[in-house]
Amino acid sequence: MLIGVIGASSCNAEIAELAEAVGREIGKRGAVLVCGGLGGVMEFASKGAKEAGGLTIGILPGTSKEEANCYIDIPIVTGLGHARNILIAHSSDSLIAISGEHGTLSEIAIGLKLKKTIIGLNTWDIEGIIRAKTAAEAIEKALKISEGRDA
Amino acid sequence: MLIGVIGASSCNAEIAELAEAVGREIGKRGAVLVCGGLGGVMEFASKGAKEAGGLTIGILPGTSKEEANCYIDIPIVTGLGHARNILIAHSSDSLIAISGEHGTLSEIAIGLKLKKTIIGLNTWDIEGIIRAKTAAEAIEKALKISEGRDA
Amino acid sequence: MLIGVIGASSCNAEIAELAEAVGREIGKRGAVLVCGGLGGVMEFASKGAKEAGGLTIGILPGTSKEEANCYIDIPIVTGLGHARNILIAHSSDSLIAISGEHGTLSEIAIGLKLKKTIIGLNTWDIEGIIRAKTAAEAIEKALKISEGRDA
Amino acid sequence: MLIGVIGASSCNAEIAELAEAVGREIGKRGAVLVCGGLGGVMEFASKGAKEAGGLTIGILPGTSKEEANCYIDIPIVTGLGHARNILIAHSSDSLIAISGEHGTLSEIAIGLKLKKTIIGLNTWDIEGIIRAKTAAEAIEKALKISEGRDA
Repeated sequence: MLIGVIGASSCNAEIAELAEAVGREIGKRGAVLVCGGLGGVMEFASKGAKEAGGLTIGILPGTSKEEANCYIDIPIVTGLGHARNILIAHSSDSLIAISGEHGTLSEIAIGLKLKKTIIGLNTWDIEGIIRAKTAAEAIEKALKISEGRDA
Repeated sequence: MLIGVIGASSCNAEIAELAEAVGREIGKRGAVLVCGGLGGVMEFASKGAKEAGGLTIGILPGTSKEEANCYIDIPIVTGLGHARNILIAHSSDSLIAISGEHGTLSEIAIGLKLKKTIIGLNTWDIEGIIRAKTAAEAIEKALKISEGRDA
Repeated sequence: MLIGVIGASSCNAEIAELAEAVGREIGKRGAVLVCGGLGGVMEFASKGAKEAGGLTIGILPGTSKEEANCYIDIPIVTGLGHARNILIAHSSDSLIAISGEHGTLSEIAIGLKLKKTIIGLNTWDIEGIIRAKTAAEAIEKALKISEGRDA
Repeated sequence: MLIGVIGASSCNAEIAELAEAVGREIGKRGAVLVCGGLGGVMEFASKGAKEAGGLTIGILPGTSKEEANCYIDIPIVTGLGHARNILIAHSSDSLIAISGEHGTLSEIAIGLKLKKTIIGLNTWDIEGIIRAKTAAEAIEKALKISEGRDA
């Protein structure tokens, strides 16, 4: 299972904590975390996943692996700029959106177009997003729905 | 001036008429129409622009120029799938969103991230979109704001 | 007919003259020139096409249309970096390679993979490239083969 | 260390054996294998790496992870078609080219443009490729040069 975590590259302490908790749940359950590899929500989620023993993939917009946050195990260097958002949606079995701005909205939109499960924590209000209130609930729903789909 | 027109690849008669009127205004004013090159809103807007003597560019998702609608002068064949949406946002001086579904939402999101002017006709309700009620008003606003920005 | 011209972003006087002559032939015959939109071979070919009354398309690697050379009519802004090379190969009915370095080689390779006609002027020695000695011969062959293929 | 292995999606028995040996060396030394995720050289290299306990990344051209060969641990689904070749060159610390056709040539070209180390086994004859005769020699050179560069 590859779980995508999407959100902005800067965030406040509350969102940081939430992102880290989401990452931790992903790591604890043995899923792989996919994200954009940069700071903010991406970094805190990666930190959580890494500290729980998980594997982290960062699909980077630029041309150097140096831009990855320090919790990324596998940097995928795309050089594609914002077009790398599409790859995160394609590569994730389900997506967890945490807060987020316009980049996150683009990933939600493409995720919905691709009929991916999208769990929302304090994020954009778009029909089709499945709401969750806690990190644990978000992962629970992300895993349950994806497994149901594969079965 | 390159004006992007974004919207779904299938649409009802009312939206078709609106898209054609938007295309016509773009053509009449000597701007170039950029779109995704397929059917629906893209096709009707291209038809309008072409019939008013305008030039039409279709940034296609697939690997063949044959998928372009028949009003496209210049097919740009990308082979990028949904990632071609990003190119429409980047290449347009301003964007006019007509109705639309998740693909359109992804273009709106990237357009807003890129700080492009986005005029909305009967489309997603996202902060930052400038509303218009008619095709003429949409073009008026698209051209005025872009010119102001260049000056 | 969209004819792609591929070559390096800097070049000596002899190659510049050749690129300009190729562009001029494209413009004179009413074909559209597609290129990477930057300097060197791209710029001189665009200049030639423009001065002969042709239409020029520049598929740019960066995120701003300002990087286009001043002979580009339609800048396609991709933000894709080197991945935009693939779009040039996809979008061109046939390709003319003039001298060139590794970027040009990548376009030749993808062009051959896509079974596009590639005419070579003083360029990489790769099987499948059709050699020409002058600009006029290059266009002659590019147009003849592409037309034959469409018929 | 991410080592890219590039080569065609179908191959004869001799090349298959070579690819598998290269993969095995990558796995044995604890490096991560990056490839295009499909059949042929990509599949045999992945098999070798996997059997030696390595981690394998497949950067896929299509829109489904199902197209990955069965030795891929982490499928990166791009939907970008041939443009995904660029991502393999960007993401690899060094590249090993095994035989290969035009797709491989495009990756070699972009790799050279990006100044990546490229080791060649029975592949295209392009200046800048460092030749090797055996899988062990190829990895030896790939690791030595990349480490030297990082140091």
